[in-house]
Amino acid sequence: MRLKLKKEDLNKGLQAVQKVAQNKSNNISSENGLLIKALNNIIEFQANDYDMGIKTIVPGIIQESGEAFISNPYLMELTRRLPSDEIEIIKGDADTQLIIKGGSLKFECLTMNPDDFNEVEIVENGYSHFTTTSVIMKDLIDNTSYACATDVARPIFMGTYLDVQGNQISMVATDTHRLALKTATLEESTENPLQAVIPSRLLAEISRQLPTDIPEPVEITAVRNYLAVKFGNVYVRTRLIEGEFPNYRRVIPTDFKCLVTINRAEFTGAVERASIVAKDAQYNVINFTIADNQIKLMSQHPDYGTIEDYVSCQIEGTPLEISFNGKFILDILKHCHDDEVILKSRENSPMLVQDKEDLSCTFVVTPMRTK
Amino acid sequence: MRLKLKKEDLNKGLQAVQKVAQNKSNNISSENGLLIKALNNIIEFQANDYDMGIKTIVPGIIQESGEAFISNPYLMELTRRLPSDEIEIIKGDADTQLIIKGGSLKFECLTMNPDDFNEVEIVENGYSHFTTTSVIMKDLIDNTSYACATDVARPIFMGTYLDVQGNQISMVATDTHRLALKTATLEESTENPLQAVIPSRLLAEISRQLPTDIPEPVEITAVRNYLAVKFGNVYVRTRLIEGEFPNYRRVIPTDFKCLVTINRAEFTGAVERASIVAKDAQYNVINFTIADNQIKLMSQHPDYGTIEDYVSCQIEGTPLEISFNGKFILDILKHCHDDEVILKSRENSPMLVQDKEDLSCTFVVTPMRTK
Repeated sequence: MRLKLKKEDLNKGLQAVQKVAQNKSNNISSENGLLIKALNNIIEFQANDYDMGIKTIVPGIIQESGEAFISNPYLMELTRRLPSDEIEIIKGDADTQLIIKGGSLKFECLTMNPDDFNEVEIVENGYSHFTTTSVIMKDLIDNTSYACATDVARPIFMGTYLDVQGNQISMVATDTHRLALKTATLEESTENPLQAVIPSRLLAEISRQLPTDIPEPVEITAVRNYLAVKFGNVYVRTRLIEGEFPNYRRVIPTDFKCLVTINRAEFTGAVERASIVAKDAQYNVINFTIADNQIKLMSQHPDYGTIEDYVSCQIEGTPLEISFNGKFILDILKHCHDDEVILKSRENSPMLVQDKEDLSCTFVVTPMRTK
Repeated sequence: MRLKLKKEDLNKGLQAVQKVAQNKSNNISSENGLLIKALNNIIEFQANDYDMGIKTIVPGIIQESGEAFISNPYLMELTRRLPSDEIEIIKGDADTQLIIKGGSLKFECLTMNPDDFNEVEIVENGYSHFTTTSVIMKDLIDNTSYACATDVARPIFMGTYLDVQGNQISMVATDTHRLALKTATLEESTENPLQAVIPSRLLAEISRQLPTDIPEPVEITAVRNYLAVKFGNVYVRTRLIEGEFPNYRRVIPTDFKCLVTINRAEFTGAVERASIVAKDAQYNVINFTIADNQIKLMSQHPDYGTIEDYVSCQIEGTPLEISFNGKFILDILKHCHDDEVILKSRENSPMLVQDKEDLSCTFVVTPMRTK
């Protein structure tokens, strides 16, 4: 194999597969790594850790076809620092060494047997298929998957639920203490509904790679136990979480006694300040007293003191005293976008938070009992 | 006590004392903390952890004199985020709570008995005294103290040696594998010579606080077992390390067989690249072959491969093959300033590195035996 690549293209290709190529968590390190395949005028990088398979096409010149399978934690840093924009990648068929050359630098590294690599197959037919844009997809992921559980005890909550029916696409995640839902509209309706629970950490990797400067089409195909996502030069196949995701629509409260309209930046500032002492105390509790057109915040740390603060707001309905985990409130406010947000609540019940104008995101957070 | 301060002044005052106020390493936490003292129209913040005592004057209005002694890890973050530029600090004489108020926020925190605080005394008479500028002092510290030892086995090498004779000021630090020396000139000669070994981590704290945008006078007074440093509103008293610092002038090599003039940026780039695999291998060894007007660099990691690189240079004298710890070379190059640096060496001997034009810094590094 003998390839000529631009440094920028090589780095982009490595960036796409590197995280999966370097995943050592499944302990089958001998089969983890990066496959470089130069065949039929196409240079392809692949990585596959069984949770996620990813392949990407890298522009370049094939002077000699071939393939190489390497596992090298320094590859990314090294190629980023190569002192030339023109890179050569060379491996003789009988050689076990791969050579990467750029400017004055030559890097020789050991390779493994390409037969040990489990290639990422392209799915042709799934039970459902739809197309959206990279911007919409990233928005759906980023506004929901943060709310998932990190606790392995209930695996279904470590995923984000994707629900597509007709031209409606929703994503939702919950750790049972809080929930985040985002909906969007597809330009073209999907023929068959799609429901899948995707591991949130895999979605984070997809979101990282989705281009947002210019919207690009994203094609999604669902098979029973995995999902295929295609955008630009990248093709990703992710494992799904088995089991039934609870009916999230039933969790979203609809009956409220106290409606608050509040400036998002001011409220965020006050919650951040109250979190300074709360964050290291147990459960990060902040007490909210909603009355007289202001929210009073109170937090305390048993050793280090008490913070009191307040923010003006508009209140409709009855006054309310309620406590929340400050981190959950901040997470929600970080994912709101409008200047003003709406808080809808009643005593001892989950609170609903939405942007004032844009209703595509719905956040729910369960109060804490402090008495 | 009742004070009115500008947020900016409060933050500046806390920044000066906070690191010492929060030092828990000496395990006498009951006496660690911040003393706020408002007396005779002066507001003073003090902290003292016995290694270092620091006091600073904070501009503000005293509405009621008094003092408070507090130990609170959240103070800095909280005052930085206070939603107002006008801050009030209030404590009744009989109260154990200190109240900090700014805009909508009120913070109440517990205080300790001010009698338990060991006040920082001002030294009037030392055996030696000199004045320089904050820029020169920071330069002396930053170019030398990084080379000290972190190994507590030989305490003298955890310090930086300050040597003042006439109008010559030098600082030098070594961990016995490498040495950094920086010299400067005083405007006014000191009457009595000064020699002191200052713990490098205390110098780092002083350097952090020395203003560099506008040079300010720095006054230094030496007493037998401590040093007093004064600049702007800040007064610092540091413990010294007892024992004799070795004669550093004898360690600096003077006999060379190979003189190299090399572009600093190009050489740094090549050493950085060679370090990518070397840094995780044992001792970070990089092999340098100096011949034919180029330096060839070679590094290897037993599992991950070999890097070869080269940089053009001018060589006078005989060719040389020699190995160094890559991190030590990078540390030196980071502290050089000229476009070109000079390397002076001979086989199996320490190498001397200097800027080509500015000879005020001298760096020495011991080679590694690889055979």
